[in-house]
Amino acid sequence: MANYKLVIEYDGTNYNGFQIQPNGITVQGLLEEALSRIAKTEVKIIAAGRTDAGVHAFNQVVNFNANLTVPVERMAVALNSLLPKDIRVRGCEIVPDSFHARYDAVEKTYLYRIRHGQIESAFEHKYCWWLKRELDWDLIEQAGLLLVGTHDFAGFAASGSGVKTTVRTISNYSLTKAVNGGDIRFTADGFLYNMVRNMVGTLVEIGLGKRPVEDIPRILCSRDRTQAGVTAPAQGLFLESIIYPDLT
Amino acid sequence: MANYKLVIEYDGTNYNGFQIQPNGITVQGLLEEALSRIAKTEVKIIAAGRTDAGVHAFNQVVNFNANLTVPVERMAVALNSLLPKDIRVRGCEIVPDSFHARYDAVEKTYLYRIRHGQIESAFEHKYCWWLKRELDWDLIEQAGLLLVGTHDFAGFAASGSGVKTTVRTISNYSLTKAVNGGDIRFTADGFLYNMVRNMVGTLVEIGLGKRPVEDIPRILCSRDRTQAGVTAPAQGLFLESIIYPDLT
Repeated sequence: MANYKLVIEYDGTNYNGFQIQPNGITVQGLLEEALSRIAKTEVKIIAAGRTDAGVHAFNQVVNFNANLTVPVERMAVALNSLLPKDIRVRGCEIVPDSFHARYDAVEKTYLYRIRHGQIESAFEHKYCWWLKRELDWDLIEQAGLLLVGTHDFAGFAASGSGVKTTVRTISNYSLTKAVNGGDIRFTADGFLYNMVRNMVGTLVEIGLGKRPVEDIPRILCSRDRTQAGVTAPAQGLFLESIIYPDLT
Repeated sequence: MANYKLVIEYDGTNYNGFQIQPNGITVQGLLEEALSRIAKTEVKIIAAGRTDAGVHAFNQVVNFNANLTVPVERMAVALNSLLPKDIRVRGCEIVPDSFHARYDAVEKTYLYRIRHGQIESAFEHKYCWWLKRELDWDLIEQAGLLLVGTHDFAGFAASGSGVKTTVRTISNYSLTKAVNGGDIRFTADGFLYNMVRNMVGTLVEIGLGKRPVEDIPRILCSRDRTQAGVTAPAQGLFLESIIYPDLT
């Protein structure tokens, strides 16, 4: 029995989220099915982040315990041959037994893509929040920086997620301007449910001039979800990377 | 009655090609359905290029005659509200009665996207030819340039397409290197059936070292399709732009 770590990329468009559900096809469901076929026994995985329906991932990390005859260096190819093309295993390695994809994650980075133009792109609509109006990116830059640091993010979290604490530390925020939009990245020790999408929704309202930049500290202090902006749509969100302590 | 010109972008993944077919959903079928609803009578369109199943377009051009009450500046919005999100009308204008989207096209540019890597991208697989091995792009550059000019392209055309002449003029060829691949563009006064995909398939075989660069003039002289390489897959091909004489 060994503990395996997988790095996975997926286009979330066609899935009912990552986590296995009673209804709908999920990334976890397909992955466990493929792993169970290879292991010839039921395999359950632990994922670093449970992305919602329509959310994508470049580098989701999962781990699982199994007794496999397939050599570890052939696992990615073996799994990919059993998975649909919009889910790709990018790497597989054997890790210490103690490795836990969720608990051991030190930091995660999410990317949120915003594009704009009068007419939505036939190619981009599944991979961004498409806005008709151009945003004031300077305001978004200013407002986003006010989110960096250790704060109680209850005002940006979906209620009822039952976590012990709503305090999180955003260690990095970056805005990269694209020709017709921008890419927003947040790195934190953890994110509350819908936190990135609620922060982005609020930033967009600021960028549209519907709210002042000062709403960010006000929402943080209020700890009241009703104070923040709309929840940005799922399809613009990408789980980009997960940092673990050096395993060696 | 006026003659309308539309510019259309579409993701060809989910369609059985552009041209209306007895079976399967086509871009033309959906477009004519939407136009007919707006015109409240049957509308037939003429398209500049009839792309195959899985082929995409950034700027397909069509024209149609209709008597519409919707102002021309609102047509794109009206049509887009009736079309699926992977087909977008980018513009609509009234053109002289004599304008014919196919016959008046002076030049067309097709883009072919090639990407490589050991593991195919979950996002790119519908929009490129994914190759495991890196290509020798210098060889492709040399070989591609040999296609430029006025030649008989019968060796690169699918047989039985019933055209009067297989002579075409490629006025421009360009190769743009990407981080993990390259974008090949051909501009010509016209393309024979499968000509771009057959040229790209041959260039890739040259880039993999399976054929010498000198095969390009040899295939051109042979006028024999069996001499050329494989047909590159549809999903890497994009109809990028169509040039018309100045309409003013």
